[in-house]
Amino acid sequence: MNNSTRDIDSLIELMAKLPGLGPRSARRAVLHLIRKRALMLTPLADLMQTVAVTARECLRCGNIGTADICDICTSHKRATGEICVVEDVADLWAMERSNVFKGRYHVLGGTLSALDSIGPDDLRIPQLLSRIETEDVQEVILAVGATIDGQTTAHYIADQLEGRVKLTSLAQGVPIGGELDYLDDGTITAAMTARKEI
Amino acid sequence: MNNSTRDIDSLIELMAKLPGLGPRSARRAVLHLIRKRALMLTPLADLMQTVAVTARECLRCGNIGTADICDICTSHKRATGEICVVEDVADLWAMERSNVFKGRYHVLGGTLSALDSIGPDDLRIPQLLSRIETEDVQEVILAVGATIDGQTTAHYIADQLEGRVKLTSLAQGVPIGGELDYLDDGTITAAMTARKEI
Repeated sequence: MNNSTRDIDSLIELMAKLPGLGPRSARRAVLHLIRKRALMLTPLADLMQTVAVTARECLRCGNIGTADICDICTSHKRATGEICVVEDVADLWAMERSNVFKGRYHVLGGTLSALDSIGPDDLRIPQLLSRIETEDVQEVILAVGATIDGQTTAHYIADQLEGRVKLTSLAQGVPIGGELDYLDDGTITAAMTARKEI
Repeated sequence: MNNSTRDIDSLIELMAKLPGLGPRSARRAVLHLIRKRALMLTPLADLMQTVAVTARECLRCGNIGTADICDICTSHKRATGEICVVEDVADLWAMERSNVFKGRYHVLGGTLSALDSIGPDDLRIPQLLSRIETEDVQEVILAVGATIDGQTTAHYIADQLEGRVKLTSLAQGVPIGGELDYLDDGTITAAMTARKEI
């Protein structure tokens, strides 16, 4: 194809770089966008333009919002004494959807990783420690992934905070709706070890 | 989340409507876009804005490009005597990537379907017939899908054009790299019936 379709090709190329999309699905998505120009393409372009200008990381917790301090950090309805530590903004959003936690968050921005040489200062761990100093925090909930890197990170933070606040982690066990037959051995072991009297 | 993050939420909602993306992958994509603002989000917004303004359907063949008559239709390097009939622009692009066809195209925009009450006039079939009248066409290649609706459409077009041009269809058989064990019965039957002497 020559110059005049170059924009469409570039659009497909860029879309193909999104996580979850490849060249084929990017082509399908772009054709869909062009067909639904008024309903999809133009509104999407406008929204992206707006978000590119307004989106920012909360200076306190690392959540993504449109203000220097995010809605959750400024809300008067959220408990100030509890901080839930998550790896990523996506994890924070998942917690918010479940609607179970009424405190505030701290987004690490990843996990410690010797392989990728990610140390404590590459994450928002110093900021977490200084929040414990300055805010009136009673409990830190370490809601990181049950992966090796996630658990390493949890141990490191626990070491740093030991004796200064109450430290908890999410319970491990059988997911709601989960069938035993489909669970891995580690989950079954964890659920068995933490079994409760009915 | 309250008003100030509404744009980010709307962006996620709109992205989730793209084919191949769901709510979860849309959230991941939007977080990725915000993190790579300069490299991804802003260029993507700009390109979408441009494409929303410039993209149009070729008045002759139905391909999507940026001119009233597309690059392929106007190219002097393409044979005028051959028209390859495809269901969709995505099929045209797939043919172009294989680089095997040097003629021109005609995009139907779908297939005949009794169930969805799509008749010949809902597709670009009248336009195809008038192209056969006005352009010097020797061969029409029916490159539609080997589905029931695709074959119904091919039969209908073949009926309309019978005796006026040479009509061909794509060969059916074992795909390159395909293992017999993974092929469906229909493909094996077609390949067997059309077997060739070596």
